[in-house]
Amino acid sequence: MVIIVLIIMSQLHEKIFQALKILLNIEQNFIPLHEPSFDGKEWQYVKECLGTGWVSTAGKFVDEFELQLAQYTRSKYAIAVVNGTSALHICLKLAGVKPNDEVIIPALTFVATANAVSYCSAIPHFVDSEEKTLGLDPVKLEKYLEIIAEIDNNECFNKNTGRRIKAVVPVHTFGHPVDIDYIKEICNNFSVVLIEDAAESLGSFYKKRHTGLDGLMSALSFNGNKIISTGGGGAILTNDESLAKQARHLTTTAKIPHKWEYIHDELGYNYRMPNINAALGCAQLEQMTGILQCKRYLAKRYEKVFNEIQGVRFFTEPEFAKSNYWLNCILLDIPDLELRDKILKITNENGIMTRPTWTLLNQLPMYKDCPKMTLTTAEKLSARLINIPSSANL
Amino acid sequence: MVIIVLIIMSQLHEKIFQALKILLNIEQNFIPLHEPSFDGKEWQYVKECLGTGWVSTAGKFVDEFELQLAQYTRSKYAIAVVNGTSALHICLKLAGVKPNDEVIIPALTFVATANAVSYCSAIPHFVDSEEKTLGLDPVKLEKYLEIIAEIDNNECFNKNTGRRIKAVVPVHTFGHPVDIDYIKEICNNFSVVLIEDAAESLGSFYKKRHTGLDGLMSALSFNGNKIISTGGGGAILTNDESLAKQARHLTTTAKIPHKWEYIHDELGYNYRMPNINAALGCAQLEQMTGILQCKRYLAKRYEKVFNEIQGVRFFTEPEFAKSNYWLNCILLDIPDLELRDKILKITNENGIMTRPTWTLLNQLPMYKDCPKMTLTTAEKLSARLINIPSSANL
Repeated sequence: MVIIVLIIMSQLHEKIFQALKILLNIEQNFIPLHEPSFDGKEWQYVKECLGTGWVSTAGKFVDEFELQLAQYTRSKYAIAVVNGTSALHICLKLAGVKPNDEVIIPALTFVATANAVSYCSAIPHFVDSEEKTLGLDPVKLEKYLEIIAEIDNNECFNKNTGRRIKAVVPVHTFGHPVDIDYIKEICNNFSVVLIEDAAESLGSFYKKRHTGLDGLMSALSFNGNKIISTGGGGAILTNDESLAKQARHLTTTAKIPHKWEYIHDELGYNYRMPNINAALGCAQLEQMTGILQCKRYLAKRYEKVFNEIQGVRFFTEPEFAKSNYWLNCILLDIPDLELRDKILKITNENGIMTRPTWTLLNQLPMYKDCPKMTLTTAEKLSARLINIPSSANL
Repeated sequence: MVIIVLIIMSQLHEKIFQALKILLNIEQNFIPLHEPSFDGKEWQYVKECLGTGWVSTAGKFVDEFELQLAQYTRSKYAIAVVNGTSALHICLKLAGVKPNDEVIIPALTFVATANAVSYCSAIPHFVDSEEKTLGLDPVKLEKYLEIIAEIDNNECFNKNTGRRIKAVVPVHTFGHPVDIDYIKEICNNFSVVLIEDAAESLGSFYKKRHTGLDGLMSALSFNGNKIISTGGGGAILTNDESLAKQARHLTTTAKIPHKWEYIHDELGYNYRMPNINAALGCAQLEQMTGILQCKRYLAKRYEKVFNEIQGVRFFTEPEFAKSNYWLNCILLDIPDLELRDKILKITNENGIMTRPTWTLLNQLPMYKDCPKMTLTTAEKLSARLINIPSSANL
């Protein structure tokens, strides 16, 4: 039995490579992990934008893009900014995160989630992920907070560090929604603010609600590798009118509207999305339905192929979710860094771009001393997970 | 005599308005303060960029734009970023500005100069400007430092606050170069780092050297209202290879290059310029010579017209400079807020966009308690200065 398993595993990287090769039907020399599709009115809108001379941080495409985003997600307000990192930074500022506060985030996420916390001079506090969603594990979070948190005057404090825990930021990893109802309940019970990092989940739904609408605010990203791209770009979603107004204010250098005076009433940021990038965004958003269909169809094909291979499975959306399948991934049954690297090597050397998941943030030098819970699942996922090509045009 | 002066002044706003009206030969309903000209290969490059699918923070236009910028300014290195504010933020970080340090900046500048200091958790320290350049007054700075500064172990400290003064950031206001040789000498004598805010001075030369090359690093801006525009954008200039490398690293989330691993070795930023914006920048840079000619020609015409009007003069470049005349301005002979506002009112109400200069930064609520010297000239300039339409196409 042991021998059979060993044989299966020793050939697994070859099998996975062959499966990808056949499914992706390589004609190109190189299949990237994710590339955007510009098959709509991108050129038309960008041309129009250039024609008006309004390419910068004001103009009709910014307004239009924000309107379309709000309509698509059913968020009351959307504020377009330069990227997802800046969106999250502003969300955290407006959530009231102050220097020396702690903000709970998963260890298994892109570094920007922690960086946005650092920009507020606050401290990331890392928690574990669950295999079902690849995102923050609510069961573990609840148990953990029961041990380390104490509530004082409607604020949550970390008993071990004495610092205030101001917010929890779950990430909808690779587009797969976390169990946000449960996490929201925990946040309510422990008096912490819920901010969603929805950078990867435009087009992903949790129980038929678009992701990013359950917390106080959320951050979207339209970077070049995202489901739609504005070159670089992001957005803030919120249903709160006052927060939307403040977000707009903070991201436009906190300038008070005036006929001619330059008065800024607080520390602001140069974070608004330029009109030319928004022009791209308008054209991209028009194609969301088609992009999502392509991506879900690709995921179905992946699922079928990997069902046939022992020792690995294709990650599928949690039962409560309809995911955008932004970045597809496979999971080895058994954590095995050596095997994972063999798979990464054979695919990348043969023109199929694959990636491991991010280095757990608690392992990066600048975050190694931050507070954390035991990260059993995240550590295992690191040695099991490989991202595979996911472009809508595949 | 008094009566004659009063009569002249009482008609001055009308005279200035009429002069602008004639010179600008109003056919349009509205003449903006500054708009970009897209008369080159903007469409071609942007279309090409879309065609490649590489719109985001990597791609040939970013490389090309950086190369062209370096060539044009004769800087050894140029690093393209999302805007001028982020460029200055990174310059200050790399200059070694730490929390609680002081950074000397003019009170008369756009708020972004002070904000970039705040992003480092440092404290702006405001100094006066001189009428000759509209920028930092080196004579006053030197005298001031002789009183308040003390050098300890090759570092400069503010005797009044006990804080370290780490850097001086002169601004080449409206494109007019400051007396950088003198300021550099002061920085050397007082052991502070010189960082240039050259956001407004692409195309401006000091004694035949392009602005932004005399300090350790400098920040450029290509916002929609600047001499060339990339939608939103900025760049860092430096002649130091190691600093250039670090700037590139910090602005790309401090990710260490690796075949597939995601390792970030310090707190980084998502600050790189997207390829689609750089495509615009490449086309714009190609037109610099023509743009500069147009702008200097417009300045000549303004100079001539305002020479004829008593009580006001057109601001011209300092004798050691060849300025880009990015944003033209007139100066009332006598500080007079009421008259200034009359001029602003009559012009803006009649389709000619004009602006006062920025509110002095020490008067903004978030900076009102920052250290400062007596700001006599800056205060007078505030009540004398009006920016007038400056687009290259006028």
